[in-house]
Amino acid sequence: MTLGNTFGNIFRITTWGESHGPGIGVVVDGCPPRIAVSEKDIQFELNRRRPGQSKITTPRKEADVCRILSGVLNGKTLGTPIAVWVDNFDARSTDYQEIEKAYRPSHADYTTQMKYGIRDAAGGGRSSARETIGRVAAGAIAKNILNGHHIEVIAYVKRVYDIEAEVNVRSVRLRDVEKNIVRCPDPLAAQAMISTIEQMRAEGDSVGGVIEAVVRGVPVGLGSPVFSKLEADLAQGLLSLPASKGFEVGSGFSGTFMRGSEHNDVFEAKKGKISTRTNNSGGIQGGISNGENIVLRVAFKPTATILRSQETVTTKGKKTNLKPRGRHDPCVLPRAVPMVESMIRLVLVDHLLLHRAQTGEE
Amino acid sequence: MTLGNTFGNIFRITTWGESHGPGIGVVVDGCPPRIAVSEKDIQFELNRRRPGQSKITTPRKEADVCRILSGVLNGKTLGTPIAVWVDNFDARSTDYQEIEKAYRPSHADYTTQMKYGIRDAAGGGRSSARETIGRVAAGAIAKNILNGHHIEVIAYVKRVYDIEAEVNVRSVRLRDVEKNIVRCPDPLAAQAMISTIEQMRAEGDSVGGVIEAVVRGVPVGLGSPVFSKLEADLAQGLLSLPASKGFEVGSGFSGTFMRGSEHNDVFEAKKGKISTRTNNSGGIQGGISNGENIVLRVAFKPTATILRSQETVTTKGKKTNLKPRGRHDPCVLPRAVPMVESMIRLVLVDHLLLHRAQTGEE
Amino acid sequence: MTLGNTFGNIFRITTWGESHGPGIGVVVDGCPPRIAVSEKDIQFELNRRRPGQSKITTPRKEADVCRILSGVLNGKTLGTPIAVWVDNFDARSTDYQEIEKAYRPSHADYTTQMKYGIRDAAGGGRSSARETIGRVAAGAIAKNILNGHHIEVIAYVKRVYDIEAEVNVRSVRLRDVEKNIVRCPDPLAAQAMISTIEQMRAEGDSVGGVIEAVVRGVPVGLGSPVFSKLEADLAQGLLSLPASKGFEVGSGFSGTFMRGSEHNDVFEAKKGKISTRTNNSGGIQGGISNGENIVLRVAFKPTATILRSQETVTTKGKKTNLKPRGRHDPCVLPRAVPMVESMIRLVLVDHLLLHRAQTGEE
Amino acid sequence: MTLGNTFGNIFRITTWGESHGPGIGVVVDGCPPRIAVSEKDIQFELNRRRPGQSKITTPRKEADVCRILSGVLNGKTLGTPIAVWVDNFDARSTDYQEIEKAYRPSHADYTTQMKYGIRDAAGGGRSSARETIGRVAAGAIAKNILNGHHIEVIAYVKRVYDIEAEVNVRSVRLRDVEKNIVRCPDPLAAQAMISTIEQMRAEGDSVGGVIEAVVRGVPVGLGSPVFSKLEADLAQGLLSLPASKGFEVGSGFSGTFMRGSEHNDVFEAKKGKISTRTNNSGGIQGGISNGENIVLRVAFKPTATILRSQETVTTKGKKTNLKPRGRHDPCVLPRAVPMVESMIRLVLVDHLLLHRAQTGEE
Repeated sequence: MTLGNTFGNIFRITTWGESHGPGIGVVVDGCPPRIAVSEKDIQFELNRRRPGQSKITTPRKEADVCRILSGVLNGKTLGTPIAVWVDNFDARSTDYQEIEKAYRPSHADYTTQMKYGIRDAAGGGRSSARETIGRVAAGAIAKNILNGHHIEVIAYVKRVYDIEAEVNVRSVRLRDVEKNIVRCPDPLAAQAMISTIEQMRAEGDSVGGVIEAVVRGVPVGLGSPVFSKLEADLAQGLLSLPASKGFEVGSGFSGTFMRGSEHNDVFEAKKGKISTRTNNSGGIQGGISNGENIVLRVAFKPTATILRSQETVTTKGKKTNLKPRGRHDPCVLPRAVPMVESMIRLVLVDHLLLHRAQTGEE
Repeated sequence: MTLGNTFGNIFRITTWGESHGPGIGVVVDGCPPRIAVSEKDIQFELNRRRPGQSKITTPRKEADVCRILSGVLNGKTLGTPIAVWVDNFDARSTDYQEIEKAYRPSHADYTTQMKYGIRDAAGGGRSSARETIGRVAAGAIAKNILNGHHIEVIAYVKRVYDIEAEVNVRSVRLRDVEKNIVRCPDPLAAQAMISTIEQMRAEGDSVGGVIEAVVRGVPVGLGSPVFSKLEADLAQGLLSLPASKGFEVGSGFSGTFMRGSEHNDVFEAKKGKISTRTNNSGGIQGGISNGENIVLRVAFKPTATILRSQETVTTKGKKTNLKPRGRHDPCVLPRAVPMVESMIRLVLVDHLLLHRAQTGEE
Repeated sequence: MTLGNTFGNIFRITTWGESHGPGIGVVVDGCPPRIAVSEKDIQFELNRRRPGQSKITTPRKEADVCRILSGVLNGKTLGTPIAVWVDNFDARSTDYQEIEKAYRPSHADYTTQMKYGIRDAAGGGRSSARETIGRVAAGAIAKNILNGHHIEVIAYVKRVYDIEAEVNVRSVRLRDVEKNIVRCPDPLAAQAMISTIEQMRAEGDSVGGVIEAVVRGVPVGLGSPVFSKLEADLAQGLLSLPASKGFEVGSGFSGTFMRGSEHNDVFEAKKGKISTRTNNSGGIQGGISNGENIVLRVAFKPTATILRSQETVTTKGKKTNLKPRGRHDPCVLPRAVPMVESMIRLVLVDHLLLHRAQTGEE
Repeated sequence: MTLGNTFGNIFRITTWGESHGPGIGVVVDGCPPRIAVSEKDIQFELNRRRPGQSKITTPRKEADVCRILSGVLNGKTLGTPIAVWVDNFDARSTDYQEIEKAYRPSHADYTTQMKYGIRDAAGGGRSSARETIGRVAAGAIAKNILNGHHIEVIAYVKRVYDIEAEVNVRSVRLRDVEKNIVRCPDPLAAQAMISTIEQMRAEGDSVGGVIEAVVRGVPVGLGSPVFSKLEADLAQGLLSLPASKGFEVGSGFSGTFMRGSEHNDVFEAKKGKISTRTNNSGGIQGGISNGENIVLRVAFKPTATILRSQETVTTKGKKTNLKPRGRHDPCVLPRAVPMVESMIRLVLVDHLLLHRAQTGEE
């Protein structure tokens, strides 16, 4: 049922709001009743996403304070739609007057104008990463559901530009991720990443990289064999994040350099529990979770907004030069970590409920 | 509306059929009326997918002859559901008696059994690549619609194991792809790929690789800014193919090694037509097609079925060794080419109709 | 997710097939695994729907023998799509040559032609009641699921033209309904109805009437408070049956002649079990089942096909007279009984699974 | 795609908000771009729905002032989600303390509690008719789209209790409906209806009735032949309104007292335009609009809230008496008129877009 601004089948979220409009919001429908949910839970995740949180993120000043408007009574979900709203404060539409007249390279300005014949130029309107507030708020609700199933989702920055971190997917913890502003649990790599990002900002340039995520505690049986393969829905959710360009699960692209005899994950039985010796499958076989850790990676391109003069064309098709004055992130990855976690959680909760619907199993 | 065995929102396909049951089929709903469709068109694509087509594919003998059962009158679609059916002939359920008792490594046997508490062991049941007959048949119908919009989808084998082809996405033609049995338009690379695959078969082993696809002639405006980003729906479709482990569009993972100033695609205006100088975006910006070629890649793991003895466990959780006797492809890529094209076509037609629905534009 | 030829959200059916094409079929997706399903179960319901079953139905000769093509292994569902197929034998396309040239009054000929710019004139193509074979086959599968929950659906002819039956919704049994060819459990009324229908046939005319249905054993909690109200989904399903013109639940239209103080259903508690003294609500309050019997009624118009000369216009817009030669039912109600039951069952199973998905309760 | 709190397939609305929470809202997704939409347009319809508008409606004082929060720029839609919000002011949760302890007869209290294991007792929470604010706001946007297609939807009170109005569906105008507080265009009947409703209020009782609606200017071709029959989707939408118990289109239940030869609508051609002499079909044939006026009726039960002592049971299952102190409407029909219009408009716009998607026709 994912379509337009709605994501999910049973646990469904609908997001709304332009970057420089009155606010940003989300409606979560199909949530199980009697789940503990508070504004504090949601705020924790929104704070990890919000701009201005550190020297390596955009200086746009937004407290991003959330309000729950429906669906929760005395800290418990009612089973009715949960509406969450966040105000936009630091809107500076004047920053965007030039953008009304010319298309920023590798932004959505041109395609939006051509598709709809109209667009809200300020801050990219609906194509702004600000839209992800709704996803992260909904993801915080999903997190509380997953906690009840002892399912843990941890994402972190695996690589910035050419600096790659070493991370143990079995042991990495949230606190390791949150120890530094770049959200990389490898302290040495983190330091190098921060330097690189600061250098990019100084040069008015930007970099991309890779976010890796691990899901621990997944039961066997989530997903289904054909179009709703678990990895397919994860890919849909993650490729719908702004600036993402690639997705892989388990061995991914590098697994194509292995033979079948190396790649196959041998089954073992320990004390009656079946597991696999290796995990090239990344926790999913035939579209269905096999109980191992789900491991996936998402590639994010270098931020399109750079503070350098670039050639482009005006909306009238004339050659021009454009030097954006809007605030920007020289690297989206630190703030994308909670977005990645949220999309994974939304997919997992939806599949938990779908699995329960069809099979009656938790 | 993609859920379970249904894919798409307006142009929707539902596939059915087990590998060793009476047959495999698909129902296509929401197809525009008065589109020319024939069994010959569908057969052309099915023949590219069918087993036994060459020495490097599985020897299972299936003519895979299709019959259109509804929705077409005198060679034109009626706007009603189009049902297509293909018989299974060369079913050898006896080959699979061992599989009923033990789980094949990196197959769906274990997850299917655990999810449903029941499974059709013969040939992997619903998890068999045979299921993709329905997708390819539906993709052939989608192809006829895209032809009417001058949109051309070409996929080919870009890499097998460590042998990478050089292909020009602007000029590659179907006939170049079909010139050899591995479906790689670079003749030298093709030869090396075929040798590698033959060697793998001789060793009872398997390899994977990468399929690349290019879409030419896409209008500006397909896709939407949030969850139905064009690349997100493409990722969903392509990651739902058996054995796929990764997806990337445009610069993909390698684009993360570029700076924003290198990666951004500068707009140019030539004779009133806006285009981009480079195409790191892969034809999609902000989730919406920008009129450039869409370029994407899909990673396929080495085939899980290998004709070697492997450690595993029985359905009772006992250690055992298993040497599959079922027929297999030592490399799925040559037959996956029409599958990749089909999934892309299904996504594009659905987005063409969605775009027309919302904006009234073709 | 009901759209086009697909009905349901979790338990979803997709039907296909034209009246005079090779066959008619259905694909059932999302069915729970390990449900007992046999061709015999399906055939039982199809026999109640099939033409030629008695002197008061159309003489078209169809055995309507079903074949299960997928999704069932050794009499148990696999959790994969269940495809069911029925051949068309007694197709006489020549009967319909006149219909290609002129629009039958109150049929779908004109609207189909105008919508799609093409139509399959033979037997009404997709608008034929023959399409309901797929619904009834799927309904038989749903019946087996409901049996496991001790939920019983019984429909019967409540009124033909002006002959109304007296039926006790608490005690009526399937065997009472099947005692006569008109499917009315009131023997005296049944006799009069049969006479009326025979008279109509003799006069080349037709009649309509009302089917009533009762659902016993429904748990409290099916349905939801806003758009997926249980009665709303029932109305959708039942108004999608050919020739239906009205729907009501509980007191329905006649309840509008009561005051609130008369209409309200007082709650009572007996041995810890809460029930209502009256049942004007028809078993649904606020869109959710309350554990009482669900009682509903569907109005079916007199069959549009009558064997009399009627004024109409040709496809070129010229005045003409048309006397159909196709076979017809002088009254659709006896055969509509299993259709009504099937649509109710499909809605109930879908809501059982939706309820389980959101709340974890059976 | 109608599910839970979302209605529609292409033009989709999601409503949220409890009766006594901070507010009520709606998100409209899939709206075509460049449609003129203003808060004034929405307010006009909300004012027709709001409480306290006359002496025969509930005295709850709510201005129901709307704010558009997204999706509209300079009075034109952007093609992005349109969020509309209305504050709740006159919330008096103390009125509802008794309701927390006992179930009101024929309300959703009991079923909600049993389904979710939790409920917001104040004002009925999500089951309050206050939820329909979101529908009416969205319906006002749909109205502006329909205006562009010259499609006009007019609903009015056809009957209150046993007082039936005479109304000409071909000529009735909005101004006739709005001339009196009961929204009945027959002045004499209106007077009698008002008296009856006032008498009911005086007696602490309530009445129901029938709303009729006519749609003029519908093009041929909306709807489809099987599950998405236009009347089926209308029935779904209208039976999802609070207090509705029945739906009929065209001749409806009374048409079952006609013979086919009387009921069939003969086609005529006048100046090349095909129309029908009678309109027993109610503007829909085979699930598809035929260009005649769509005429339908909805039955609304007497309001469940009555200011009289009623027997009931407590949440602990004990016998008790309950005399509600909450404010109420002695008859919901006057305020239900804009709700009925809104649901019809939502269905029509969705089908206009679906038709355009599949056929390319406006």
